[in-house]
Order: sequence, then structure tokens, then C-alpha cells
Amino acid sequence: MPVVTLLSDFGTADGFAAAMKGVILGIAPDVQLVDATHDIVPGDVEGAAWALSQYWALYAPGTVHLAVVDPGVGSARRAIAVVADDRYVVAPDNGLVTRVLQAATSWRCVEVAEPVYMRPQPSSTFHGRDVFAPAAAHLASGLAFERLGPPVEQPCLLSIDPPPRGEDEVEGRVVHVDRFGNLITDIPGEWVESSWLFEVGGRHVGNLRRTYSDVGVGEAAVVIGSAGTVEISMRDGSAAKEYGVARGDPVKARR
Amino acid sequence: MPVVTLLSDFGTADGFAAAMKGVILGIAPDVQLVDATHDIVPGDVEGAAWALSQYWALYAPGTVHLAVVDPGVGSARRAIAVVADDRYVVAPDNGLVTRVLQAATSWRCVEVAEPVYMRPQPSSTFHGRDVFAPAAAHLASGLAFERLGPPVEQPCLLSIDPPPRGEDEVEGRVVHVDRFGNLITDIPGEWVESSWLFEVGGRHVGNLRRTYSDVGVGEAAVVIGSAGTVEISMRDGSAAKEYGVARGDPVKARR
Amino acid sequence: MPVVTLLSDFGTADGFAAAMKGVILGIAPDVQLVDATHDIVPGDVEGAAWALSQYWALYAPGTVHLAVVDPGVGSARRAIAVVADDRYVVAPDNGLVTRVLQAATSWRCVEVAEPVYMRPQPSSTFHGRDVFAPAAAHLASGLAFERLGPPVEQPCLLSIDPPPRGEDEVEGRVVHVDRFGNLITDIPGEWVESSWLFEVGGRHVGNLRRTYSDVGVGEAAVVIGSAGTVEISMRDGSAAKEYGVARGDPVKARR
Repeated sequence: MPVVTLLSDFGTADGFAAAMKGVILGIAPDVQLVDATHDIVPGDVEGAAWALSQYWALYAPGTVHLAVVDPGVGSARRAIAVVADDRYVVAPDNGLVTRVLQAATSWRCVEVAEPVYMRPQPSSTFHGRDVFAPAAAHLASGLAFERLGPPVEQPCLLSIDPPPRGEDEVEGRVVHVDRFGNLITDIPGEWVESSWLFEVGGRHVGNLRRTYSDVGVGEAAVVIGSAGTVEISMRDGSAAKEYGVARGDPVKARR
Repeated sequence: MPVVTLLSDFGTADGFAAAMKGVILGIAPDVQLVDATHDIVPGDVEGAAWALSQYWALYAPGTVHLAVVDPGVGSARRAIAVVADDRYVVAPDNGLVTRVLQAATSWRCVEVAEPVYMRPQPSSTFHGRDVFAPAAAHLASGLAFERLGPPVEQPCLLSIDPPPRGEDEVEGRVVHVDRFGNLITDIPGEWVESSWLFEVGGRHVGNLRRTYSDVGVGEAAVVIGSAGTVEISMRDGSAAKEYGVARGDPVKARR
Repeated sequence: MPVVTLLSDFGTADGFAAAMKGVILGIAPDVQLVDATHDIVPGDVEGAAWALSQYWALYAPGTVHLAVVDPGVGSARRAIAVVADDRYVVAPDNGLVTRVLQAATSWRCVEVAEPVYMRPQPSSTFHGRDVFAPAAAHLASGLAFERLGPPVEQPCLLSIDPPPRGEDEVEGRVVHVDRFGNLITDIPGEWVESSWLFEVGGRHVGNLRRTYSDVGVGEAAVVIGSAGTVEISMRDGSAAKEYGVARGDPVKARR
């Protein structure tokens, strides 16, 4: 039974997420639906790209990841489908797939353009229901990827570059703040050693620990997080609040 | 595999939604459970009726929609089941099914009254678990609808009427504010033309656009929304906040 | 098709819950995943224990309940699996299973220690993905419980004792505040009679009613709740707000 995961910024209370699921099951009654999240901050493509990066590759080949954070719905932005390391992603062409493409060994992309794989007379305000969900369902049902539309050579990408790396220093950034207030950075764990020192929000936060609870309550712990990058946490507290730091803010690592 | 969708105002953190799912799977192990939402505002029957209207008909015939927003639990209000255009809805008789009945080509309604299809000794405070979930599961398992209890001729309805329509003017209302702050009205899209002008919260919001992004950031766009009615949005913002408007507030459309 | 339910304090927006689901489906493609909740307050083991108590026994024998609220992740705290009345629970050894063990007729516990049933090179910060999810998936796939690791005689328990009971008086406590602001207590329904009087937050709240709506709007109703204990509610309002009461606060019952 193929799996279709769903990510959106729709919340659930308006019935929009449930509408997408109904459309998918109408086309592909045998899929297993998996809610990834509907709690992306409205319009936060960057946050959606990060969330997607945490799970897409953990699903079996053939899985279809539907990801709809689509502030440009109805505009000239394209709808796209990507096959990356044998997993599919169906999403608006606004950079949402950036981290998938960066992590994949190989990928191809097509535009979702063929009307026969959309709902009849798609609305201009809800492509999640009328364009993305049907495309995801058809892929899950075995439709050949190329049938969705013409190839896309250059999907839109967010500018996510590795941080500048000196001999003894890395100038990283916070790329995600999670529900616990942990500051997840773009500094690869392999670039730093246990003796290195870290700075965020103009304050020193010590050196690398093995895990969150290797410090006392209310103290900062710098760890290599589950995404493989440096992460600044606060035991039983929120590092984001304590340091007044948000996504995009700098984090320094020094030997 | 029959589908049972779930809507409630329970949230999930108390374990009540999970309790309903356990009861359903205990009776009908082969159903596919689909969370529609558990985030309806506590007690908001009108909001639940709107959310349900966005998805019920998109599911295949035979689907069972469980919908529990039930401030009168344990009182004399009835539990009902509806079959509308071959989809089932199981809900308290408090108006939650109003929009389903209005949209359906045909429907029948019964009271959920037969104790054999409830949990033994149902509580007086959690009919979601003890009455509605078992009824939904039995329907999904193929129980004949009429077996649940006696026919109900007049289920309780919310007073949702089409707006007063003049030659050159419609006096509509906001019927739903979605997560994005879009003001969804009861003015049917077919009643207005692109030249018409709209007013909300005492302010002019221009004429019809095709989609949200046909205006600049921070500007209002009046569109025909995905529900087929006039909708007032604000690009990358919340029309509800900008205009200080809530459900029930008037929206004027003039030629 | 075996069922795996998921409880966590991860929220969904970070992609961590979706990561756990991907791991489970990778090991056990045929399970039915059921989201219990991901909205436990971060680190609130006591709240998680209560939520779990509301649903675990309603699922069929063989069900695997994954429950990850794990502030001590990566520390010396053990990972455990429990089989209680033929249902499995996989969780950190921090008291999360307390109410399951108290309610079960019989149970056994093992440590989740065998690396072959974990993801390779588990992180020190995300055992939900790397330790607990794989263990749950292997159990759902039919792995013999004892294979996960050595027996645990004394899993960590929260100190949850029945309230002191006098002849004419019970000194109970609020053990959970639900989404509606209902104050759920530890006073067993069988200990009190309809003539008893109740006090919370220094105020009298009357005697036992049958259900929430047996009082006027804005009035308190003391009921035997769906968990079988005394519960103090406020019709169309929040008893927690009205009485300024939180988990742990005392509730008096007097003949």
C-alpha cells in the first residue's frame, strides 16, 4: 500500500486539510495517508522546507510527499513534482523542495501541468485540493512521473548555502527554531570538535556536550543535533527565548 | 477498506480523540481512520458545520464522517446519524449537520438510540467515545443505517439562509474566518460580476480579483474562494485583523 | 494489520513526528499508524501519563503504544517496553507508563537495549526516531517482547496515590485540566454520593450532577467524569480559569 504524507500550513480547523485527504482517497483508495504536519506557520516556505528535510528520506521508495505552503497560489508560479532518490514530492515551485534536492543523490523535476490529473475546473485559490492532491494521488496510484507535465530544469530554490568556514572559525546561522526553543544551526557537526567554543546572541554558550541533559537545569548545552548539525539548547527551557534569537541569526563557532 | 473521518473540538492532548479511535478500531479493525480536525474551537457548532461542509462530499460513497462538537452532551439533545448522498454523518443533533443537509441532493436521518450499538453503560459526559464512535464504527462495518434507531424527520438546524439579494446589491455576511484571516462570505460567486464593489468593516475593498496574489502585499483581494463564495483576503496578511471583522459581520456587494 | 499509536510532545511543525512515522513504516509497512497526540506540553511526563491512561486499554490486544516525552533523552535514563494486558507501550523510563501499570491486571517490562532493533548509530538527542520508533515497529511486526533487552523489575513510577479518605471527607487533587478547563480529580466516583458537597480553590461548587448541562450557563457542575472520577466543570466556560486552579491543587469532598 503506497504512502502519501501531507505537509501544509492549513491548520486543520477549516476543513482544508481534510478536503485534500478526501480528494486523494477518491483517486487512490488504497494509499495510507500520513499527516506530517498542517501546522507550518502560514506562508513559511523556509520552515516547511526544513520540516520536510527531517523526514522525506526516512520513508520507503515510492512514497509521495505532498507539501503545500503556497502563498502564490493561482499566480504564475508553477506546480511541480520531484522524484528524488525514488521518493516523490509534489509542491508549489517556490523553494519548498530546496533541502530535498540538496540532500538527494539524484533528482528529476516536472511541472504539474496536465489538466487530466487535476480536479475539473481547478479553483484559483486552493491548488492543494485541486492540483497538488490529485497529482500526489495519481503518482501513488502508479502514474508515470513524466506524464504530469514537461520537465523543469531549474526549479526555484531558496538560497541555502553552507556557512563560511575558516581554519579556526565558522560563521553559522540559526536555520530552524524547534518547538522546544532549540536553535538548530547550519554548522555541520563534522566541522567542529569538542573543544570548540560557541557564541549566540552576543553571549558565550560553552563548548560541545553529548546531549541536552549533560548540563544543569537552565544551562545551555551545545550538541550535535539529530539533523547532524550544531544545535544550541537550554535544559528544561528555551534557548530561543533566553538568547532572544530567531531563524537567520548568527552563531559563531571558534576553535 | 471503509473510511471513517473524525472531527471534534477535543484537541488531542487529553487523549479523548485517541480514545474515540481506539473504540472505532475495536469494532471495525479494517477501517482507515482519517483525522479531519480536533481543533474546532470548544463548543463552536457553527465552525464545525462549516469545516465539515468543506470535505464531506469529497469522500467516496460509504464514508462515515464522525463529527463531535457536543456542548449538550448528556442532556436531552439527541444523537443522530445522517445518510446524505451516500455518505454518513454521525453527530449530536445540534445543527452540526446543517450544511451537509443543505448541500445534499437527498438525505435521511435517524436517532442513534439502540443501546446495542453503544459502549456498555455509556457515560453522561463523553458520548464521543461511548455513543458516536461506536455508531460510526458499526456503520463502517456495514450495519444497516435504519438499525441505529427511529427516523428523525426534523433534525435541529442552524439558521443559515442565503443573503438578501437586490437587483444591484447583496447584503452578505462573513460565515467563516479561516486560519489565514480570509473572510469567507455567504455571497455566491455566481451572484456578482467582476465590476462589482465590496465593502467590509465600513471600508471599501475594491472589486473582484482572480486570486490572492493579484494585488500587492498588504492589499485586499476580493476573490471567489474555493467554497464558491465571495472571499475577502489580504495578501501576506489577515483581512480579519485589518478590518476588525469576525464571523457574522456584514459584507456588502454593489454593482 | 497491527496498530501503532503515537504520543509525543514534539508538535508536528518540526517534522520530528513525521520522522518517527517514516521509521516505523520502513520497518513495518503494514501497520496502521494512529496519531494519539503530539501536543503534550513539552516535557510534561505527568500530562502524558494521564493522556495515555485515557486510551491505551481501548485498543485491541497487540496494539503498540509509542509514547515519547523524554526530557532526559541521551542521559542514563533507560528506554523501556511494557506489555500490559496484552497491549505494548514503548517509552522512556521516566514514569510515563505509571497509570498503565496501575490500571493493568498484569504487566512485564524490559529495557530497550538491543542495538539490532535500533537505527544504526542512534543520535543522543532523538531517541524517538532512533530507539523508540524502531522498537515499536519491531513489536508491531511480531518481534518477541523479550528480545528487546533484559527484564526491568522496577520501572520508574510517578508518585500517584489514591487520595486520603476519611469517613465523611476525601481530600483529593486535580490530576488533569482538560482542553475545556474541566478539573479532573483523583476522587473515585464510587467514593462519593449525590448529597456530598465539593470545594475547590476555596469556593463551594455544590453537589453532584449527572452531566455538564444540568446547570445554567456559567455555573459549576460537579460530575462523575468519563475517567470515572469526580470532575468539576463550568457550563460553557472554564472551571480552571474561574477557580484559578491547576493540576495538583486540592479538591475537598464532604458528606
